[in-house]
Amino acid sequence: MNPTLIAPPALVRRAEQHDTKAIQALDSAHYLHPFTSHGDLAGVGARVITRADNIYVWDSEGAKILDAMSGLWCVNAGYGRKELADAAYQQMMTLPFYNSFFNTTNVPAVQLAAKLASLAPVVGGRKFEHVFFSSSGSESNDTNVRMVRRYWDLLGQPQRKVIISRHNAYHGSTMAGASLGGMSGMHAQGDLPIPNITHIEQPHHWDNALPGESHADFGRRAAGWLEEKILEVGPEKVAAFIAEPVQGAGGVIIPPETYWPEIQRIVDQYGILLISDEVICAFGRLGHWFAYQKFGYRPDLITFAKGVTSGYIPLGGVMVGDRVAKVLIEQGGEFNHGYTYSGHPVACAVALANLELMEREDLPGRVKNDIGPYLAERFAELSDHPLVGAAETCGFVAGLVLVKDKGTREMFDPALSVGMICRGHCFRSGLIMRAVGDRMIIAPPLVMTREQIDEMMGLIVKCLDATLDDLRNAGELA
Amino acid sequence: MNPTLIAPPALVRRAEQHDTKAIQALDSAHYLHPFTSHGDLAGVGARVITRADNIYVWDSEGAKILDAMSGLWCVNAGYGRKELADAAYQQMMTLPFYNSFFNTTNVPAVQLAAKLASLAPVVGGRKFEHVFFSSSGSESNDTNVRMVRRYWDLLGQPQRKVIISRHNAYHGSTMAGASLGGMSGMHAQGDLPIPNITHIEQPHHWDNALPGESHADFGRRAAGWLEEKILEVGPEKVAAFIAEPVQGAGGVIIPPETYWPEIQRIVDQYGILLISDEVICAFGRLGHWFAYQKFGYRPDLITFAKGVTSGYIPLGGVMVGDRVAKVLIEQGGEFNHGYTYSGHPVACAVALANLELMEREDLPGRVKNDIGPYLAERFAELSDHPLVGAAETCGFVAGLVLVKDKGTREMFDPALSVGMICRGHCFRSGLIMRAVGDRMIIAPPLVMTREQIDEMMGLIVKCLDATLDDLRNAGELA
Repeated sequence: MNPTLIAPPALVRRAEQHDTKAIQALDSAHYLHPFTSHGDLAGVGARVITRADNIYVWDSEGAKILDAMSGLWCVNAGYGRKELADAAYQQMMTLPFYNSFFNTTNVPAVQLAAKLASLAPVVGGRKFEHVFFSSSGSESNDTNVRMVRRYWDLLGQPQRKVIISRHNAYHGSTMAGASLGGMSGMHAQGDLPIPNITHIEQPHHWDNALPGESHADFGRRAAGWLEEKILEVGPEKVAAFIAEPVQGAGGVIIPPETYWPEIQRIVDQYGILLISDEVICAFGRLGHWFAYQKFGYRPDLITFAKGVTSGYIPLGGVMVGDRVAKVLIEQGGEFNHGYTYSGHPVACAVALANLELMEREDLPGRVKNDIGPYLAERFAELSDHPLVGAAETCGFVAGLVLVKDKGTREMFDPALSVGMICRGHCFRSGLIMRAVGDRMIIAPPLVMTREQIDEMMGLIVKCLDATLDDLRNAGELA
Repeated sequence: MNPTLIAPPALVRRAEQHDTKAIQALDSAHYLHPFTSHGDLAGVGARVITRADNIYVWDSEGAKILDAMSGLWCVNAGYGRKELADAAYQQMMTLPFYNSFFNTTNVPAVQLAAKLASLAPVVGGRKFEHVFFSSSGSESNDTNVRMVRRYWDLLGQPQRKVIISRHNAYHGSTMAGASLGGMSGMHAQGDLPIPNITHIEQPHHWDNALPGESHADFGRRAAGWLEEKILEVGPEKVAAFIAEPVQGAGGVIIPPETYWPEIQRIVDQYGILLISDEVICAFGRLGHWFAYQKFGYRPDLITFAKGVTSGYIPLGGVMVGDRVAKVLIEQGGEFNHGYTYSGHPVACAVALANLELMEREDLPGRVKNDIGPYLAERFAELSDHPLVGAAETCGFVAGLVLVKDKGTREMFDPALSVGMICRGHCFRSGLIMRAVGDRMIIAPPLVMTREQIDEMMGLIVKCLDATLDDLRNAGELA
């Protein structure tokens, strides 16, 4: 094929009319959704999302919805970014696939690895010069498990197998990912967790602090649970600690400022590896390229996915710090691990275009200095709402907890599913906001303007008010 | 965004000049390849694949190479297919991502699920009406492990956890995938296999048959190992048997015709689930849409990936037969499993375009009736070559074994790495052929013409001759 003959795709005039009922029937007949009760879904019919632009998505009935969850924590650059579609098209016409086994490579994979290394600043003398690619956060955390155990094997400490994680953490849905995660509902299905993975409690002040305990005191105490667990397991058996900088799917759990410094002290003291799962938090989400920058700790491995391509194409990976890379490369021989799509040229080309776009528009800086602080300011106002027990933000994630009594912090009866009531109002009002129990959470696209933040806040207040009305009408509130 | 404003991407005039040394240096500095010894790689420098068309790829030095491995068993429709690039572009501009959690769906995912269901014929009353999506074969096999255990839980038999697989099988590189696989080198790294996975020997006549044992007798005996293992484990504890129709990465191990019927009898007798891992064998590779059609058995779950998109974008999944789907949907409530990119709209749109293209060009029929038989005919001629102990094909995969003595079937000293010597000649001669020990294997794109098969066969013979010369010069052969 002569490269000059690459013809552009034909214009498409999309029919904006969809037969919703027909799509729903086909959906129900054939498509098994993730994390879904299909008996329930068949009864209501799926909402069909058909197109998107900027921070908005549209459904098959023509309703416009403000997507305050960025798809699923991933569309950091917003929808409709032509640069990314162009990059996919050009790479598919040039080299749509080639593997990186057998001492071969491809240009986009090499360029992306170099780009990612250039974006990860040196911290405490630790550099991130190497990247291992996968197609998801799940696959990346499986890579971490195999890699940390390989590392300790090579150092003559094969007994170091135990990885410590946290309850209510989310690290993916493979057998290993779900095991690392601390979701009891996932552990209940499929004979999980796999061996040599153990969990400590999360640093969640709202749920886990003692009465009257300050955030600072609680943060230090919560970090101390790691030391207790290391001593319980036996320090010579512990391979690594894995954690999200801010827990995402667990409900946007923002640790106290004292937490990460104490975690760093403990992993240093016992010499264990630190894995920072930044699938949600990297690529501008917390106002930095990587989230360890926000909290100032020094990971050895960084899990990434989602934001690296703004979700336009599946891609994940692990940033491998020098401590691990040096041993793997210089002492390791062949690391018997990898995926067909490791370093997929199209995925890597789209990621490169996405990172260049984010750099050009300085999306991390925007979150840090402009829209992040403004979101924090606006979210703080929610504390005055009768239903809101606490409202917190960190960069461009935010969460609020719905409470029965602000004074006593009494929660609603879980059987009421107040979070789901609120989520229903959001859906009907043109806002996508997620419920985790009675915590309502958001992670909007990083291209959101201040005016759009105002628009979103208006919708949030409207939905909180409607939820309040429902609860009052049901006699659940005075 | 107004859909009529979708502008085409700019034409790209690719510079065909690449600074190979600079790319190799960057590669070595930053990119951790799958299944690679980076110490060795740094010494030689990676071969940089830069573009591709039809069945050929080109490297950064301008060398043209016939890709007889379809990338990595995946580029079934060949390189340079504009329809697939168009589909990716249009979908990225329309809806580049949306999740399928929370009772939402998207049109390409629904259409692809329906399309796949329509391509999988009913066999023995078993239908494949439902599809669960992931981004790879690895993630799909993790899904299988969680799904079969969930199935037995729901049927009140939670003790049915054991999955039986085979030595030298390949089922991916996640912790569960590598555990299901029977690769000892993978089990040696990362504390594998995980519990409740066990292995039987492979149906490999060359390696495993008794002296003088016929293929038919061996096939029945090899299947019998499954029954022995079931009885050893205890039939009440066995959840499923997983197998590739033809083992791919293990070295294109084609089972005797008597193997699969006896496997079917055994899984039926003990009521265990049968998982057909068709990541390599589906989508035309064996002359059918799905490989169970070739051998006539009745799986309950089918793992797919690779060929579903011809590798242009990461996508995988599981075809869920009615036996399992009915229980999951009607009795299951929420199956706590899934991936962010399950049902990724762009991946599904590219898969749809790929399947439509394969249907239009009848690639499965082409393999079954035209190029498959011709490959078999030409491959049979290799049996006359002094180095070739056996040469076999099945659909559009093929393998040959390099032997020291055709009469006694004596193999070469493994330390000689004869397969790698031959692979080196292939690489230098413009042919990509893979070595698995001293087996040489191919799985070319399904668009290959008879003339291109002749071209490939000429290269294969040339490389076998060169290998023969090397061995004679080294005094390893008379």
